[in-house]
Amino acid sequence: MKCVGCKGEAEIKILQPFCKECFKKHYLRRVKRLIQKFNMIEKKDKIVVAVSGGKDSLACAQALYSLGFEISVLHIDVGIKECWSPKAKEVTEKFCKEKNIPFYFASFEEFFDIDAKKFFEASRRPICATCGMLKRALFNKFARENNFNKIATGHCADDVAKYFFKSIVASTEESFFWLSKLKPITPSTHKKIVTRIRPILEMLEVENLAFSKFNNINVAGCVMCSYFQRKDKITEILRKIDEKFPDFKIKVVKMLEKINFESEKEIQECEICGEPTKNKICTICKIKKRIEK
Amino acid sequence: MKCVGCKGEAEIKILQPFCKECFKKHYLRRVKRLIQKFNMIEKKDKIVVAVSGGKDSLACAQALYSLGFEISVLHIDVGIKECWSPKAKEVTEKFCKEKNIPFYFASFEEFFDIDAKKFFEASRRPICATCGMLKRALFNKFARENNFNKIATGHCADDVAKYFFKSIVASTEESFFWLSKLKPITPSTHKKIVTRIRPILEMLEVENLAFSKFNNINVAGCVMCSYFQRKDKITEILRKIDEKFPDFKIKVVKMLEKINFESEKEIQECEICGEPTKNKICTICKIKKRIEK
Repeated sequence: MKCVGCKGEAEIKILQPFCKECFKKHYLRRVKRLIQKFNMIEKKDKIVVAVSGGKDSLACAQALYSLGFEISVLHIDVGIKECWSPKAKEVTEKFCKEKNIPFYFASFEEFFDIDAKKFFEASRRPICATCGMLKRALFNKFARENNFNKIATGHCADDVAKYFFKSIVASTEESFFWLSKLKPITPSTHKKIVTRIRPILEMLEVENLAFSKFNNINVAGCVMCSYFQRKDKITEILRKIDEKFPDFKIKVVKMLEKINFESEKEIQECEICGEPTKNKICTICKIKKRIEK
Repeated sequence: MKCVGCKGEAEIKILQPFCKECFKKHYLRRVKRLIQKFNMIEKKDKIVVAVSGGKDSLACAQALYSLGFEISVLHIDVGIKECWSPKAKEVTEKFCKEKNIPFYFASFEEFFDIDAKKFFEASRRPICATCGMLKRALFNKFARENNFNKIATGHCADDVAKYFFKSIVASTEESFFWLSKLKPITPSTHKKIVTRIRPILEMLEVENLAFSKFNNINVAGCVMCSYFQRKDKITEILRKIDEKFPDFKIKVVKMLEKINFESEKEIQECEICGEPTKNKICTICKIKKRIEK
């Protein structure tokens, strides 16, 4: 199998066969193109990359670093032992130290002044949804208070495709609202909301894994979220689609880039904590109140 | 198996088990709801239903008739023997005669003054795409010239879901443009374009088949398009999805109802025939010129 770049021996075949060096170049070229297409990053930007220590967010940080952007990294202890381990912090910190990237650390418990276990129990949503909500709120507040004007996340095509199918199945206003946000850039719509960028949104999970490996990055995987262990119905469908159209998930991302959904709720400030929310009281404060009772 | 309506013996189970009479009521209720939701039909409307003689378009005509709307029917001889037979005309004419519905007939060859075989050969598109283009043009011109202000077609959730996946795979501006048109109503955007309505867009093919059967309608199936014989990759994926989420296709329709796609080309009039087109010369005239050469 020959590399489509240099015609040398290929080491990997995801969509096309590549040798290690050509794959890295190809990966970076595509990330760079997406950044430029959406005017994601400007010179004066102060960017914080949210890094869990998994392959996707580390690939995102590595790509931005390799492309010469100045970044900082924020790592979060989510307070659930199935989803976070000291190893995740270790690999992220090591990654930053090696490259001289400023490393920040926060934990849900301290940041929000909550008991994570009680909070997750009191939330009526699935663990991953609650965790996602807390992460978004933390990223945003942390970035704003530390003078970052862009938050970069490691969302990739697999996340989008999966959420896309979930949204169709759920078929609710809420799910379509979120779908409309899953674009390479979500500009700030309120003075308290920091612009979000998703530089690797058109990359596949398997590409992120390869990119991490080829850059000799140690990654810490979250067992609950691992692609290779997922067994839900939507993942089964996506696997079937993968067999027929290996780049389908990337094309879903590209389609969503062109879509506008009707009706968006206006953003206001939570009456309790002042953070941006679509309701009078934000979900975090609602759950906190529920625990206090 | 009990009918979810009357609790009597169910005769069919598509999404839920129903007896014959309750299924018909349920079907009509859903069609009526869609018509009302999109304000599809107003009192003064003159509606022509495009009927191929297949289960979907006949179910559409039957539903509008059962709901008390005044309709006319237009049947087309598409000039390809694989896709049209005198039987298709026969069943459509019989359907109309029984119900006292005005029946109109047109053929591609006469209407466009073409040799169908040569035209399909000269077209660079697949047969079904060329046929679809000619149908749309004929419906529109026929309706306008005969004072109909609404064209109703038998497009259903299966068509939308299939086209939806095809559009993602194709990933072209053109395909996304068409996707944005696949809503229950496409209002006229030009004085020469007649508003299109799709009253059974949220119904499944299998539901249309059942509705036709339960109304004792003879249908003539197009062998090339038959759902049950399709073997392409997208159909295989849709079957897999069907297994997991039997109402997924309906939900795709509902999602597309909420979507707006960016960038639409402006409509102009063809320099040769004067019909509405997105280009200087419409595709039909382009192909005709190609044959003349």
